[in-house]
Amino acid sequence: MSELDLQRLLERRHVAPWRTALAHWVESRRVQFTITALILINAVVLGLETSPTIWARHGAWLMLVDRACLAAFVIELAVKLVAYRGLFWRNGWNWFDTVVVGIALAPGAGAWSVLRSLRVLRVLRLLTVVPQLRKVVNAFLHAIPGLSGVIAVMAVFYYTAGVLATTLFSGTHPAWFGSLGKSLYTLFQIMTLESWSMGIVRPLMERHPWAWAFFVPFIVIATFTILNLFIGIIVSTMQELSEKPEPGAAGETVAVILERLEKDLAELRARLAERK
Amino acid sequence: MSELDLQRLLERRHVAPWRTALAHWVESRRVQFTITALILINAVVLGLETSPTIWARHGAWLMLVDRACLAAFVIELAVKLVAYRGLFWRNGWNWFDTVVVGIALAPGAGAWSVLRSLRVLRVLRLLTVVPQLRKVVNAFLHAIPGLSGVIAVMAVFYYTAGVLATTLFSGTHPAWFGSLGKSLYTLFQIMTLESWSMGIVRPLMERHPWAWAFFVPFIVIATFTILNLFIGIIVSTMQELSEKPEPGAAGETVAVILERLEKDLAELRARLAERK
Amino acid sequence: MSELDLQRLLERRHVAPWRTALAHWVESRRVQFTITALILINAVVLGLETSPTIWARHGAWLMLVDRACLAAFVIELAVKLVAYRGLFWRNGWNWFDTVVVGIALAPGAGAWSVLRSLRVLRVLRLLTVVPQLRKVVNAFLHAIPGLSGVIAVMAVFYYTAGVLATTLFSGTHPAWFGSLGKSLYTLFQIMTLESWSMGIVRPLMERHPWAWAFFVPFIVIATFTILNLFIGIIVSTMQELSEKPEPGAAGETVAVILERLEKDLAELRARLAERK
Amino acid sequence: MSELDLQRLLERRHVAPWRTALAHWVESRRVQFTITALILINAVVLGLETSPTIWARHGAWLMLVDRACLAAFVIELAVKLVAYRGLFWRNGWNWFDTVVVGIALAPGAGAWSVLRSLRVLRVLRLLTVVPQLRKVVNAFLHAIPGLSGVIAVMAVFYYTAGVLATTLFSGTHPAWFGSLGKSLYTLFQIMTLESWSMGIVRPLMERHPWAWAFFVPFIVIATFTILNLFIGIIVSTMQELSEKPEPGAAGETVAVILERLEKDLAELRARLAERK
Repeated sequence: MSELDLQRLLERRHVAPWRTALAHWVESRRVQFTITALILINAVVLGLETSPTIWARHGAWLMLVDRACLAAFVIELAVKLVAYRGLFWRNGWNWFDTVVVGIALAPGAGAWSVLRSLRVLRVLRLLTVVPQLRKVVNAFLHAIPGLSGVIAVMAVFYYTAGVLATTLFSGTHPAWFGSLGKSLYTLFQIMTLESWSMGIVRPLMERHPWAWAFFVPFIVIATFTILNLFIGIIVSTMQELSEKPEPGAAGETVAVILERLEKDLAELRARLAERK
Repeated sequence: MSELDLQRLLERRHVAPWRTALAHWVESRRVQFTITALILINAVVLGLETSPTIWARHGAWLMLVDRACLAAFVIELAVKLVAYRGLFWRNGWNWFDTVVVGIALAPGAGAWSVLRSLRVLRVLRLLTVVPQLRKVVNAFLHAIPGLSGVIAVMAVFYYTAGVLATTLFSGTHPAWFGSLGKSLYTLFQIMTLESWSMGIVRPLMERHPWAWAFFVPFIVIATFTILNLFIGIIVSTMQELSEKPEPGAAGETVAVILERLEKDLAELRARLAERK
Repeated sequence: MSELDLQRLLERRHVAPWRTALAHWVESRRVQFTITALILINAVVLGLETSPTIWARHGAWLMLVDRACLAAFVIELAVKLVAYRGLFWRNGWNWFDTVVVGIALAPGAGAWSVLRSLRVLRVLRLLTVVPQLRKVVNAFLHAIPGLSGVIAVMAVFYYTAGVLATTLFSGTHPAWFGSLGKSLYTLFQIMTLESWSMGIVRPLMERHPWAWAFFVPFIVIATFTILNLFIGIIVSTMQELSEKPEPGAAGETVAVILERLEKDLAELRARLAERK
Repeated sequence: MSELDLQRLLERRHVAPWRTALAHWVESRRVQFTITALILINAVVLGLETSPTIWARHGAWLMLVDRACLAAFVIELAVKLVAYRGLFWRNGWNWFDTVVVGIALAPGAGAWSVLRSLRVLRVLRLLTVVPQLRKVVNAFLHAIPGLSGVIAVMAVFYYTAGVLATTLFSGTHPAWFGSLGKSLYTLFQIMTLESWSMGIVRPLMERHPWAWAFFVPFIVIATFTILNLFIGIIVSTMQELSEKPEPGAAGETVAVILERLEKDLAELRARLAERK
């Protein structure tokens, strides 16, 4: 559900008026623009923090700005949560924002230190806040369901190849095919054609001279499947476009002229009938 | 021939009614669903078997489940064979299933030990049992005949390049071009652009300074041919789609209106003729 | 603004007639053809200058021709500047020409010696002088605005991945991820799939065993985004083409026939009205 | 000019009837089929000759078959030459055949020994003899003129980059950029993305830290240009297809119905006129 749908739902449910007003305010252009600016500033700050020299000199300032941005994001989410309550969770983007902001609040020590690095994922909020970018991301996400068939075929094929490669080659080349996970990683590498021959298959063929009979068909089928995935997206995009003909297009003109023709004929017939 | 066609053929041939009933039962949703579930379970089991630690601990159980699944598949095929008899072999998928299940029944020792690894190909039955996946595989297979021209040109070109590379370079670089087979493998690698320059052509140029004059055109032509293959698929897919306009599409509307117009005109003419 | 627009603007502003005449002369076919020929000669000369043996033997001659071509280009630009004055800067190609010719006039010593190498950029003037090539370059440039959405999404995603990779891996692998710039370069390399696994990720996984969880999604998303970029161009090109149907195309024929039909019907109606 | 056009031209010119008959005979299905079979046999023989063991055992036989095939091809060409005389050279495929067969007649010793290896190019005659394959090759060749603009832009860009790379890097890395030829080869390798970073640019950056500023834009522009080449082919193929609607297609049906409508209207008008 989009923010607009949520706001309408709020209104229809007759919640306390201050909640509706709060929702309107937090989704208003001015607030969203401020948030966008804060994300951009935060992105620059996070980029500067990666430099040890800058960190040593201006670390305190950078930390301060970072914290301030984080505070603003937390407040934004809190306001939304107060306004929408349960409805807040009906919007997928809100889930995304909560996770991304929540990461930064995790304790930044010990086993959680990796989470601190994930702070930068906050920058991805740009994709959800700027409407133009959100449209592109939505288009990506919408392309996926139409491809589910090809992706499923690929997954079955990929898994089978992974198990087969593990049983065949784990004995002689454990570094590449020692476990199912390692095999799947190596097969992914081969699918991207990276060093597949000089790096993997030629060394393999020294022990298993027939290894090419496994990998050449694998590459051909995998490439062909990815190709079909690709074509699937093109075709579905084009179909979508052709189903919504823009006003003024040639197709419509023909239809309009035909309709006029039909009216003319009906008129003719009526006159002929009159004169009988 | 699809299963449905086979069932109809059975009925038209007036075979013993228990055979038709058996065919209906084995193709019923419930049985096919069970088979799909068994294949999925078998896939997981085959995946787990690749781990030596899991195998050491739960090997007996895994083996049991694997055998049980295999037994179910053998029974399914036997039932189909009893029901359809000769017609069984008219369906390409049945051939595939028989080969894939038959592999597991081969003696798993000595020279046949590789066949035991091929057991996992059974998982590919998912592609033939789940209707959505079968549709995708069918679409792939249907794309091939339309590409036969380009594939044949590619094969001629590829074979010629293979023989030429063997005669030119087998003397100095036997590891890559020692025999026609090796040359074809190396040229396939070069076609995928994997390490073609740093790995193959640069070392080659130390002995044959003009080697680039063979490989650069080879890459350009091969890439251009694959491109054309690719475009062939896109174009044929689009044509197929445009030849089956969906009901309600703009094209049909025009045709429908025109037909109505024709009828109107015929009516007009008839009336005029009457009045003469 | 194109040259033609500029000339018209000159005429409308009633500048001194000799300026308009000068503008017409410098844009005339003969002068432009001479310039094209000079660029081609200069390209060959610049190519020959890269060979030390040719340089040693014919260096003086080559230098002379090079200087002569440069002089011609400077004169051409000066004439244009005199003719158009302020309007000169309204044409993007003029900016390009000025920069490219200006580079050659920079002092070729000390810190500026790199600029001397950039002299060869002058050859790119071919793209702006030959109308057919300029059309192709224009088509490229026009494709970019339609892709700005996808490019922006990609930039956000790429920057985030860069900062994340720096924080995660700069400690153990400073050569690849030591600074934000290095990380962005390495991620660009990974996006082109060059040595991503054998060269970067496998060595990385020796210290960070979960590194694949960062790079495999990165590759999948980056490839998918580039794919969408690609499809975007195809679709927009096709739409542009379908919006401008060429005369004589099937669509127009239908429209023409329909128009004729309409006229015929109007005539029929008129006759019927007459006879009333 | 195709063979059919040539035959017609022969007939129109009223040459001696035996020449026309000879032309018809040599282009007859039976003869062309025999030639196709001979090329296939020759291809197999040439493939077998690459194996030293087979050559040692059956070399004499293989040589004999090879010579016999060659003799047949020479006779075919001689017959054509006698029948068509000067017109023979008007067909591009005849030029190709003459070169490919002529190579085998060159003395196979000394400096000419490479030519002996080129004998195998004879197999490519399959592409000109089998009509289906010739159609595919023709389609390839027809795609090229439409791409000439993009190819020219690419050539200018590629040459400029080559000269620039030579001047910038020949001093420090002569193996890759020592001469214009070497630079163009290295840039072609980089264009195919093969080892561009780990193999070339990273070592280069040790001496020229700003080298990425040359190669990253080079890759982006080159890839974008190839993409446009690609899209150009797709779009032109689609346009060609849409301009020649197949009989029975929706477009034609509409046109056919409209024509019938026009005739009906004309008839109506005629009747109305009669009755006045």
